[in-house]
Amino acid sequence: MDLNISFLQRLLSNITRGKGYRHHEVAAQASSLSQLASACEALMQRGGEAHLVLKAQQALSHYAGLEEAEKHAFFSLLAEQYSARPQAIHDAYEAYRQQESNAHLQRLFQACEPRRQDLLRRLNQCPGGTYELVRMRADLLGMLRQDPALAPLDADFAHLFSSWFNRGFLVLESIDWNTPAAILEKIIRYEAVHEIRDWSDLRRRLDPDDRRCYAFFHPATGDEPLIFVEVALCRGIPGSIQGILGGGDEVAPQDADTAVFYSISNCQAGLKGISFGNFLIKQVVQELKRDLPGLRNFVTLSPVPGFAGWLDARRQADQCRLDMEQAARLDAGDWADDEAARAALRPDLQGLLAHYLVEEKHRNGQPLDPVARFHLGNGASLHRINWLADTSAKGLRQSHGLMVNYLYEPDKIEQHQEAFSREGAVACTAELRREARHAQPLLNVAAAV
Amino acid sequence: MDLNISFLQRLLSNITRGKGYRHHEVAAQASSLSQLASACEALMQRGGEAHLVLKAQQALSHYAGLEEAEKHAFFSLLAEQYSARPQAIHDAYEAYRQQESNAHLQRLFQACEPRRQDLLRRLNQCPGGTYELVRMRADLLGMLRQDPALAPLDADFAHLFSSWFNRGFLVLESIDWNTPAAILEKIIRYEAVHEIRDWSDLRRRLDPDDRRCYAFFHPATGDEPLIFVEVALCRGIPGSIQGILGGGDEVAPQDADTAVFYSISNCQAGLKGISFGNFLIKQVVQELKRDLPGLRNFVTLSPVPGFAGWLDARRQADQCRLDMEQAARLDAGDWADDEAARAALRPDLQGLLAHYLVEEKHRNGQPLDPVARFHLGNGASLHRINWLADTSAKGLRQSHGLMVNYLYEPDKIEQHQEAFSREGAVACTAELRREARHAQPLLNVAAAV
Amino acid sequence: MDLNISFLQRLLSNITRGKGYRHHEVAAQASSLSQLASACEALMQRGGEAHLVLKAQQALSHYAGLEEAEKHAFFSLLAEQYSARPQAIHDAYEAYRQQESNAHLQRLFQACEPRRQDLLRRLNQCPGGTYELVRMRADLLGMLRQDPALAPLDADFAHLFSSWFNRGFLVLESIDWNTPAAILEKIIRYEAVHEIRDWSDLRRRLDPDDRRCYAFFHPATGDEPLIFVEVALCRGIPGSIQGILGGGDEVAPQDADTAVFYSISNCQAGLKGISFGNFLIKQVVQELKRDLPGLRNFVTLSPVPGFAGWLDARRQADQCRLDMEQAARLDAGDWADDEAARAALRPDLQGLLAHYLVEEKHRNGQPLDPVARFHLGNGASLHRINWLADTSAKGLRQSHGLMVNYLYEPDKIEQHQEAFSREGAVACTAELRREARHAQPLLNVAAAV
Amino acid sequence: MDLNISFLQRLLSNITRGKGYRHHEVAAQASSLSQLASACEALMQRGGEAHLVLKAQQALSHYAGLEEAEKHAFFSLLAEQYSARPQAIHDAYEAYRQQESNAHLQRLFQACEPRRQDLLRRLNQCPGGTYELVRMRADLLGMLRQDPALAPLDADFAHLFSSWFNRGFLVLESIDWNTPAAILEKIIRYEAVHEIRDWSDLRRRLDPDDRRCYAFFHPATGDEPLIFVEVALCRGIPGSIQGILGGGDEVAPQDADTAVFYSISNCQAGLKGISFGNFLIKQVVQELKRDLPGLRNFVTLSPVPGFAGWLDARRQADQCRLDMEQAARLDAGDWADDEAARAALRPDLQGLLAHYLVEEKHRNGQPLDPVARFHLGNGASLHRINWLADTSAKGLRQSHGLMVNYLYEPDKIEQHQEAFSREGAVACTAELRREARHAQPLLNVAAAV
Repeated sequence: MDLNISFLQRLLSNITRGKGYRHHEVAAQASSLSQLASACEALMQRGGEAHLVLKAQQALSHYAGLEEAEKHAFFSLLAEQYSARPQAIHDAYEAYRQQESNAHLQRLFQACEPRRQDLLRRLNQCPGGTYELVRMRADLLGMLRQDPALAPLDADFAHLFSSWFNRGFLVLESIDWNTPAAILEKIIRYEAVHEIRDWSDLRRRLDPDDRRCYAFFHPATGDEPLIFVEVALCRGIPGSIQGILGGGDEVAPQDADTAVFYSISNCQAGLKGISFGNFLIKQVVQELKRDLPGLRNFVTLSPVPGFAGWLDARRQADQCRLDMEQAARLDAGDWADDEAARAALRPDLQGLLAHYLVEEKHRNGQPLDPVARFHLGNGASLHRINWLADTSAKGLRQSHGLMVNYLYEPDKIEQHQEAFSREGAVACTAELRREARHAQPLLNVAAAV
Repeated sequence: MDLNISFLQRLLSNITRGKGYRHHEVAAQASSLSQLASACEALMQRGGEAHLVLKAQQALSHYAGLEEAEKHAFFSLLAEQYSARPQAIHDAYEAYRQQESNAHLQRLFQACEPRRQDLLRRLNQCPGGTYELVRMRADLLGMLRQDPALAPLDADFAHLFSSWFNRGFLVLESIDWNTPAAILEKIIRYEAVHEIRDWSDLRRRLDPDDRRCYAFFHPATGDEPLIFVEVALCRGIPGSIQGILGGGDEVAPQDADTAVFYSISNCQAGLKGISFGNFLIKQVVQELKRDLPGLRNFVTLSPVPGFAGWLDARRQADQCRLDMEQAARLDAGDWADDEAARAALRPDLQGLLAHYLVEEKHRNGQPLDPVARFHLGNGASLHRINWLADTSAKGLRQSHGLMVNYLYEPDKIEQHQEAFSREGAVACTAELRREARHAQPLLNVAAAV
Repeated sequence: MDLNISFLQRLLSNITRGKGYRHHEVAAQASSLSQLASACEALMQRGGEAHLVLKAQQALSHYAGLEEAEKHAFFSLLAEQYSARPQAIHDAYEAYRQQESNAHLQRLFQACEPRRQDLLRRLNQCPGGTYELVRMRADLLGMLRQDPALAPLDADFAHLFSSWFNRGFLVLESIDWNTPAAILEKIIRYEAVHEIRDWSDLRRRLDPDDRRCYAFFHPATGDEPLIFVEVALCRGIPGSIQGILGGGDEVAPQDADTAVFYSISNCQAGLKGISFGNFLIKQVVQELKRDLPGLRNFVTLSPVPGFAGWLDARRQADQCRLDMEQAARLDAGDWADDEAARAALRPDLQGLLAHYLVEEKHRNGQPLDPVARFHLGNGASLHRINWLADTSAKGLRQSHGLMVNYLYEPDKIEQHQEAFSREGAVACTAELRREARHAQPLLNVAAAV
Repeated sequence: MDLNISFLQRLLSNITRGKGYRHHEVAAQASSLSQLASACEALMQRGGEAHLVLKAQQALSHYAGLEEAEKHAFFSLLAEQYSARPQAIHDAYEAYRQQESNAHLQRLFQACEPRRQDLLRRLNQCPGGTYELVRMRADLLGMLRQDPALAPLDADFAHLFSSWFNRGFLVLESIDWNTPAAILEKIIRYEAVHEIRDWSDLRRRLDPDDRRCYAFFHPATGDEPLIFVEVALCRGIPGSIQGILGGGDEVAPQDADTAVFYSISNCQAGLKGISFGNFLIKQVVQELKRDLPGLRNFVTLSPVPGFAGWLDARRQADQCRLDMEQAARLDAGDWADDEAARAALRPDLQGLLAHYLVEEKHRNGQPLDPVARFHLGNGASLHRINWLADTSAKGLRQSHGLMVNYLYEPDKIEQHQEAFSREGAVACTAELRREARHAQPLLNVAAAV
């Protein structure tokens, strides 16, 4: 223990010196941090199972009291002192090298497992521990950019969370006006796509006549939603988000033929990379089909968060030739209220968006736009571009007001998904491909790639 | 896939030839087994995430239809074909050897993880998958003795289960007469210590006046109890199990000063080695103290399953000198109804039992008796030997009718547990030590060790 | 109070002398009975609202401790001392006579309300009071035959219960293997038509594959079922109860076209005359149609409890001319196993049963058979006579083994029910009328009516 | 039926002509009103039980569509056409007069029961019917002042409701932040004492640290609260409502020694006169004592709604001699912010309030103030007058800012309640009596009484 504590003190003074954390509390903190370090040591000891739950509680409560610099020091401690033991690895590898048996592999695997994985499992023993660890990882993720040495620790969190937040453990719940206020309050807070202004706004979004909302929960994190999707029921595929957020044409549930997934929000920063969204959409499609057999279309009305940024970059790099006047209007930002300007810009903007979605690729061969990657990766197809579909300031800023419908066709999902994962194929309508081709002359494609 | 299937066919014919499985269905089976093998291959592929849940369901349903020999073949397939890739391990090790960094360790750890761990996680994605995997491991455990080559596969199951069945995920439920019949039926079936004969017998054991029952459940396995404990409330520490099973002196809950844990049963063979019992007892002690502040003693009334067998072995090895007449009565098995015989046998039997519990050790330095290992390892102390405490045929057979109280003292549990885990120290009363010393002259101790 | 107590003592000694109750406890009882009488007096006083709930609890607990003779005395006390005040009635009537206004009517109505109605309402204030009052009325009903002077008290109970057990307050629950054991135990106990032998028998009757069971509960009586119906799902309309009780041909729920209500049991003797059965069947038909759209037929398989008794009475009165040999076989009771005897008896017995159901009337103009009255009164029609449909001892004894299907056709229920209530019309098939006519020659109809 | 409909038309034209209802829809309404009348007729007929539930639903849905004048006409129809039958009453009375037996009383009672009671019971058969009837009576109460002829109909509603909303049927629920939003929304709406401004305000009032809220529900009216009480936990008896509403000194629940009932709201206008408040407070006291054994005081912080009005009337009648200057400040309404004015007014105002509460009586001999009647009638005592305890506009207007604590002492409740109901005795402290005497010189008592 002494070892770890002097390690921590050295670490903490480096961190606070180097990274702009507040200095004045270092001394006092060292002691509270060292209590955490001691509790972790105790948890890992053999007799430590005695009061495992109690000690895990103490450790998590020490952690909760730390300043940010101390948390950073704690993570460094885990990364450096709770790794595996090199000699055990070398010995196990030597045995494996001589005979590549399952038994030798098992020994090597165990030798390689960082001790911090076991520590995290032990911290998870106390009631409520899982949620504390999710928040701990959220803290860690915030420090990862500054300090890439923490990446292996993050990998350990991710490894455990993918086991703990396994699909088989998730519970789908319908969220409505009979849901406890404590959960609804979190829905308001976690909505990340189209802000929920207040309880009245929420109530409209849960109107049983033409709205649905579903969330995944995990038994060990209780009332904390992990991800949720908001659904509007309507006739026909809608082309404007303001229509939906404003309340829309009311349609009786049994007359609706279309379910629109117009907002999907991840709730827990600490679960980054643990994917629930695809399971959620597919299960919600099944629920809706069962409850409302009249539904024919399952679509999104999705933002294109990267479009305006991409177009800007292209224009700055002189790889996109917009008509001068059009370009000026676009830059002035006042075109959306001017009918003539709208008419002039529409064909080019739609074409450029179609091109952006269909042709522009991330370095991993998948679409550049993250929302497109998500839905196409789930097996949806690109169905329609909607002109001036989001006229909010945010909508104009990020995608010049354009939005996209992705279409989920239950019997084509698998085929789309496999083509997408195998060759990055983007499923889309002929109309969209036509629009994408329209944009070719505007782009210096040679330079672009 | 072809590869796996021909592998399977070869395997299956070996297995059925060598190990006494039924032959006649081999050909037909190959095809159903090969469907399972294909489903597993598909699950592991990149595009496989498309219909992960569906494919996992199919795989588990194929598995459920297998004959025992086929299951064995499937396990062999997992053990041999779903291991790690040697070249990846060698490369990752080489990098680690050159620089023992966290990043290199992470790469090596991932390379060493058997692919079957990932396969099991994917099978776990479908609703109900967790329970199917628990039952799959129960099948596997049954084959492990015959075929030790399956041990690494079992280690993978154990590794995942210890994560999935983490204490933080378990839910303690009180079992009573308002519990759904579907769960009570399982309590009847899983009771492993003192058989529950029928629903009337169960009802008596759930009598709200002087009985309690608690079980751990896991959200992903739903209605399946994992472990449960039956508790009797009484005045004073009881010395006979028949008194408890027969209904006992009724005592109002608020007058009881003693809670007796008289039966603890693990329900899921497939969760062997995933320890819940110690958590269960500690949490139940807390529940009981909160509900019934008048409780002073928390004790067990436990069998000593290994005593008669150990004594027999000692006598056969001529390491135990019982008086001739006594020995004859013991062997005749008719002594328990004969007052004189009882009086003659009592001091020696009690002494030998005390010696057995306090002095006789397993090769790991812990007590030889498994029930003693469990309770002492949880921090209880050996409190009292009870003469003719279980006069059932089973009780007489396994421990000559003797039973033991282990005492749980909340404020000494940690101390006992640490001394036990550090040095194998058996916490017990002075009286018990005296009884153990009494047995010394009866044993050729030199020869025994 | 003194008044009531001396009234009680006089009463009690009369009752115990006259009616065979046990004498020896009269003196002691008088005191416990007088406590109840005092508690009731206190409840009715103005300041009595102070601890209404407490006093109601005391009164009900005093009642629970009474011997049967004391209960009888208590009921007599209520009938005689808790009536209305004559002078108030005369005054109110006089006012009403002079002016038949609503206000005068209201005053008269209030003056006429027996004070015991108010007492019962006050007893109902304490938690659990409703169920205690239901059991109190069950006690009362048992004494009504001996002592018709208690009838007005019973009318007060009935008046209040019909308000409290209003349809709008009842809750329909599905009973299955996930129902708490405490409720299932009551289902076993209350089954009144075809005895449930044990928990295994119950489990078969709740098999989710081809059985359903529904019960009405009332919020104030909690876990106590009021009435329940057992349903078998099958293909085609069944003609034998042993087939159903034995487990029947298993048919997948979605393949069933027929729901058979084969047992309906009222659970609470104290709710006699408060009718739930018709609501239950209609609501269950709706539930089943919603869950299993493939169901086409909703029928009963019903006993004819009065048939054998009626036939016997007719034969004894020489109003029924059965063939001598047939009559002998019927009386010997051994015909059911003899094919020739069965063949000889069948046409006559079926004809007589058809006649009994269609033509024989109760003095209120409705069918003589109580089960027929119930189902026809609910709007069902008489569908088919089933030969040797219940070969149990009870079945042979009460209806010579014959059973009947009543058919519930949702769109004809109203029409049948109105015709039945207006003119006693029995809805039945042409075939059944033909069978009824076949029996004419066997009956001296002139004498019979 | 024709009869009723022409009755209705005549009635409706009278009502709309005479009472200022809107005229223009009379013709159209007659038809929708007549459908309701027909449905009621059908419900009362013998065959009417056939589709009782269906017909009751239709009737209630016709009612829901009525204009106010039509509702009035419908109530008049019930009052006049659904009364009892005079001849039956005369005959039954004649029999009773000749022999005052229980049986004759029963017949007379039944003859006197207005047919509309049976109609209301039948309307109550359909799911949700109870709540519709509660709302129907709320409509009726609104018309009662204008049209006293409806009073007997209201008496019938009250008679049935007191049976249906019997204490034994009510369910106490804790209201907190985990309560469904649909219920919390109603709490916001129904709060009648201290307005809840928005969801944030509500959340503060449900803070688990130092607040509690409890409501009564009835199984047949589901999510509709009947009455609720808001409780603040604190140390010592508080003297200011703004302190409580503003959030107060936070005190840990286990440190609180006082529970303050600072707001009690009846939620259902239609349940006027059906008293729940006394049951609610007593049961909440029990709940709180069980959960928080440290609580010593159970008090209210109550408004005195009638004080300012009473004082005003006295002064106008020249029965109260306030110092001229004081009177001027009081009338100017600006005294509360002026320290000197406050000091000058305080002794007199407190004295007058004490007098008002202790001495001023309603014609029934109970205190003039309705809130005082309620709490004293429940067995509380008048504990303390709080100066400037409610400085809101409403508080200053209705009681010049003064409030009162009523104290609930569990072991004195019965004694207080009996003295109060027997002789109107007001339980209060010596200090309060002293303050009341202080006011004597200010009042022309002779003239006042």
